Amino acid sequence: MSVMAPAADKKLTGLVAATFTPFTTQGEINLREIAHYIDYLKEKQGVNSIFVNGTTGESMSLTVAERKILAEEWCLKAKGKMDQVVVHVGCMSLKDSQELAQHAAQIGADGIAVIAPFFFKPTTTEALKNFLHEVASVAPTLPFYYYHIPAVTGVNVLGRDLMEGIEELIPSFRGVKFSGSDLMDFGQCVSYSQPHWSVLYGVDEQLLAALAMGAHGAVGSTYNYIGCHVNELMLAFEKGNLIQARTIQFKVQELLSFAKKLRFDLGVNKQLMNEVSGLCLGPPRLPVMPCPHAHAQSILQKYHSIFPEC
Amino acid sequence: MSVMAPAADKKLTGLVAATFTPFTTQGEINLREIAHYIDYLKEKQGVNSIFVNGTTGESMSLTVAERKILAEEWCLKAKGKMDQVVVHVGCMSLKDSQELAQHAAQIGADGIAVIAPFFFKPTTTEALKNFLHEVASVAPTLPFYYYHIPAVTGVNVLGRDLMEGIEELIPSFRGVKFSGSDLMDFGQCVSYSQPHWSVLYGVDEQLLAALAMGAHGAVGSTYNYIGCHVNELMLAFEKGNLIQARTIQFKVQELLSFAKKLRFDLGVNKQLMNEVSGLCLGPPRLPVMPCPHAHAQSILQKYHSIFPEC
Amino acid sequence: MSVMAPAADKKLTGLVAATFTPFTTQGEINLREIAHYIDYLKEKQGVNSIFVNGTTGESMSLTVAERKILAEEWCLKAKGKMDQVVVHVGCMSLKDSQELAQHAAQIGADGIAVIAPFFFKPTTTEALKNFLHEVASVAPTLPFYYYHIPAVTGVNVLGRDLMEGIEELIPSFRGVKFSGSDLMDFGQCVSYSQPHWSVLYGVDEQLLAALAMGAHGAVGSTYNYIGCHVNELMLAFEKGNLIQARTIQFKVQELLSFAKKLRFDLGVNKQLMNEVSGLCLGPPRLPVMPCPHAHAQSILQKYHSIFPEC
Amino acid sequence: MSVMAPAADKKLTGLVAATFTPFTTQGEINLREIAHYIDYLKEKQGVNSIFVNGTTGESMSLTVAERKILAEEWCLKAKGKMDQVVVHVGCMSLKDSQELAQHAAQIGADGIAVIAPFFFKPTTTEALKNFLHEVASVAPTLPFYYYHIPAVTGVNVLGRDLMEGIEELIPSFRGVKFSGSDLMDFGQCVSYSQPHWSVLYGVDEQLLAALAMGAHGAVGSTYNYIGCHVNELMLAFEKGNLIQARTIQFKVQELLSFAKKLRFDLGVNKQLMNEVSGLCLGPPRLPVMPCPHAHAQSILQKYHSIFPEC
Repeated sequence: MSVMAPAADKKLTGLVAATFTPFTTQGEINLREIAHYIDYLKEKQGVNSIFVNGTTGESMSLTVAERKILAEEWCLKAKGKMDQVVVHVGCMSLKDSQELAQHAAQIGADGIAVIAPFFFKPTTTEALKNFLHEVASVAPTLPFYYYHIPAVTGVNVLGRDLMEGIEELIPSFRGVKFSGSDLMDFGQCVSYSQPHWSVLYGVDEQLLAALAMGAHGAVGSTYNYIGCHVNELMLAFEKGNLIQARTIQFKVQELLSFAKKLRFDLGVNKQLMNEVSGLCLGPPRLPVMPCPHAHAQSILQKYHSIFPEC
Repeated sequence: MSVMAPAADKKLTGLVAATFTPFTTQGEINLREIAHYIDYLKEKQGVNSIFVNGTTGESMSLTVAERKILAEEWCLKAKGKMDQVVVHVGCMSLKDSQELAQHAAQIGADGIAVIAPFFFKPTTTEALKNFLHEVASVAPTLPFYYYHIPAVTGVNVLGRDLMEGIEELIPSFRGVKFSGSDLMDFGQCVSYSQPHWSVLYGVDEQLLAALAMGAHGAVGSTYNYIGCHVNELMLAFEKGNLIQARTIQFKVQELLSFAKKLRFDLGVNKQLMNEVSGLCLGPPRLPVMPCPHAHAQSILQKYHSIFPEC
Repeated sequence: MSVMAPAADKKLTGLVAATFTPFTTQGEINLREIAHYIDYLKEKQGVNSIFVNGTTGESMSLTVAERKILAEEWCLKAKGKMDQVVVHVGCMSLKDSQELAQHAAQIGADGIAVIAPFFFKPTTTEALKNFLHEVASVAPTLPFYYYHIPAVTGVNVLGRDLMEGIEELIPSFRGVKFSGSDLMDFGQCVSYSQPHWSVLYGVDEQLLAALAMGAHGAVGSTYNYIGCHVNELMLAFEKGNLIQARTIQFKVQELLSFAKKLRFDLGVNKQLMNEVSGLCLGPPRLPVMPCPHAHAQSILQKYHSIFPEC
Repeated sequence: MSVMAPAADKKLTGLVAATFTPFTTQGEINLREIAHYIDYLKEKQGVNSIFVNGTTGESMSLTVAERKILAEEWCLKAKGKMDQVVVHVGCMSLKDSQELAQHAAQIGADGIAVIAPFFFKPTTTEALKNFLHEVASVAPTLPFYYYHIPAVTGVNVLGRDLMEGIEELIPSFRGVKFSGSDLMDFGQCVSYSQPHWSVLYGVDEQLLAALAMGAHGAVGSTYNYIGCHVNELMLAFEKGNLIQARTIQFKVQELLSFAKKLRFDLGVNKQLMNEVSGLCLGPPRLPVMPCPHAHAQSILQKYHSIFPEC
């Protein structure tokens, strides 16, 4: 794969799984599980694109070196199996992000994504755009996605404002992973988006709402284990069968409402994936706490009571 | 109209305008404008139900006596013209709420609604239910709606949790005005709702999302002046024409995004209504500040650039 | 007492108890307990001024009529016993506040206080000042205090900004009850205050910090039952004995930290007062929930383990 | 210096400057300015201890390699001049923090400090303690300080809860940099602290309040340029001259209130230091935006109007 090839023709759509990072039980990254993981997503869940080293992938708990090794393995093993591998390269440090962006270009990633820096929070659209521009500019041929997740970052720049004139600054801009509940901003992003952009939604429990607003696809962690059902949701939606789409969405909500009441952090989420998939993704890394067994079992039981096997 | 008549057969659906309270230029309530207002809503906007003395109606800035007089006039003038008049009777003081609830029953309101108390914020579902129960129980024959607006009240009880077993406590419970952006909770409310309940959505700029989730109707302040367009949105949605529904929703978003950037509080909103409708609803009452003329003009201009006359 | 008498010579200082409102077990206001309550505060706690119908007094859960009756009884029974009775007259409705302010003047209150309206939140200093001005102007001879409690109201106007030029707008302005943790703003209020103003602190668990910043006194709910100890704290501070003052402050913190871990809302606070004082102040009113017996007992036990009898 | 030497005898007290990181105008770290910087702090500001690579030092915008080089240079140049150099080694990634902690031990730092991880936020005291323990355990002979700054991290574990039994888990624990406004928690930390611990306060604009509560010292960014004045404040406080201490504190507040109204982020803060000190610390690094010249000048003018030269 040539790093110079324009990627604009491959529009990112459909369901994208935000992958967990496999660890050994000792807490080291576990590359061996990646190939199985990709097969599982493709074959069992019908998921054809992945978003790696994101929030679900615990990227903020990884070293830069680990992120590179992981990104490389994901790209290598996904070749010929996945449509697209988007590598999240956002870091607190611009230099680290640039290093990861260059690396992503070298290993043949299909795109990169960057979260807003969240320690020193950009308070203006301009500050955020400057930061993203500096990252994108070291990997100018790679499709660039902004990862918008204001409730986590505390950065309240509107997605729509970010998009204003963005291609002049970042010619490789190709869209946004919008993980927020402000659907006015989301709708305005969709409305403003160019034909070669992707406006993807990232709040799994209300995907149907975003589809109604015109979402081009979805990125989320639950698609790791309910991807096959959400594919049906999307299919039903496309066919105009809202009743069926809603029925599936309500099931997703039932599961996640139940899990949230018990506590549903990333450690729990990862363990649920372990249980459902049979993969060995290991525990999370501190500061995320591992999930007590009984806790995961309760949610697993709920899962099985709601969803038939894929 | 008998206060004992069961009202359950009149399910609240469609578009409901949350009305502004007409004031004189001296800041006193202005009953004379109410009849004109009702005619305007019905004839120009195609709105057939109203939610009076709510947030838009500045109820919290009114005395109990003023709220009674207003409720009475709304019910009187709406007779034969509006399908339903829901009177908001929520107050900080339970006693005041009870007095208003009893009064609403006497004047023949079609339903009452109560906001969660927000000074002493209920921190448990039980506390909130107890409060609502005490209000509802003094007007047992009136359809009762819970007014859920967590971003304003700071009361984070889930709508779905509130609904659990609610009819045992409040037999007159008939639904919720859901003014929040948590569409998982909203979806679960729809999913749990009984056939004679109404789950109405209250965030006008993302109504289409809620319709996809199964909303039975909508309550909002913008329906005072864009009701006719949103009626088209709802019609398009019902017919399965999502593209058209989305086009209208994006227009609503364009207007409200524009207004928000300039500042869009209740004073501005009211002045916009004055300008669009030609009604004399007067200024708001302190602590809401009146809207500078130029400010309202900018938004009015945007309004006219987006929407053709109804 | 003449309502025209200038009250400026009586500067409000020292410890001020924010009183609970006595209710009967049926939840009606209980005037008979007020005289006992005043005696208890004076004789057992050494408290000589009271702030009635405030947050602790559940004013927001009372009707306007109840607030008047209570204010009257407090003023009547405090005559000759208390140095000052400040009546909180803040309401959501400006009209209600004005009615209460006029009434406070008629019954011979020593001052009035007003909280920032918190449903429609003033977003500018000007809006807040306008509201306060409208209240103060109907009782121009009564010392006026602004009740600043931003964490509860969500109104983030700085106390210092509010004070800027305030006497031109509100000639009766006499100070602030500052219930916030921003001690830069507090210090700037102290620094800017005029000789006839009182800058009183309202976060009991960190009073010593405010004294160091120059607080002229303190208003709080815990002074109902630990007033005698906090009087010692203030005396030690005045004498320059910081070690002793700190020792007492740490005890207060130990009690309140303990209570907070268990849950320490107004219902618990009131029940603790009932237990410590032997007064019959009754339960709180909904939406504040009554305190389970065992809960109050745990905190009472802690109280007795920390503080000797007054 | 032996890495095994017990450091407990050197209790960290007094004023500690949280240093800025010198950059070249091209945005690379600028080691050459460090020696001058240390001389300036010691000679002009009377500051004898430094906290490097913290928030003020933009550590989150640095790579791990840069943080090592900087820490090394600070330790080297501070030798014989500064009492103590505390190196902040907190990172999102535990592995990075461990690497920096080991490195700090090798280069002879006097202590390390760790901020709570703030992407995946520990929600329990246990989770936070586990994380800190894993960092501290790779540098067991270095005094360990917890850097508590809840408003920035969003981690709301109480300092006092963190301290409970901490020496069993982290024998090298020596205290906390408490950058928060909850002075009940702060007081309880002081009250619980062991004789060999340091409870340092980090909100410069209300240091006097913390001193009253028993603070052992202070860490902050403004001590870079008003250290000499705050040293006087601390001296006045120690002598029991609260009036003088308050006068100085009010001046600090006047400066910072003024700056805050204009906007006072790290870029502005750094430029103010450049202007006051004459050092060449350069601009900040993105996402912190550089400070417009006129903006810095306004604050500088205010600075000179309030404070005489050191």
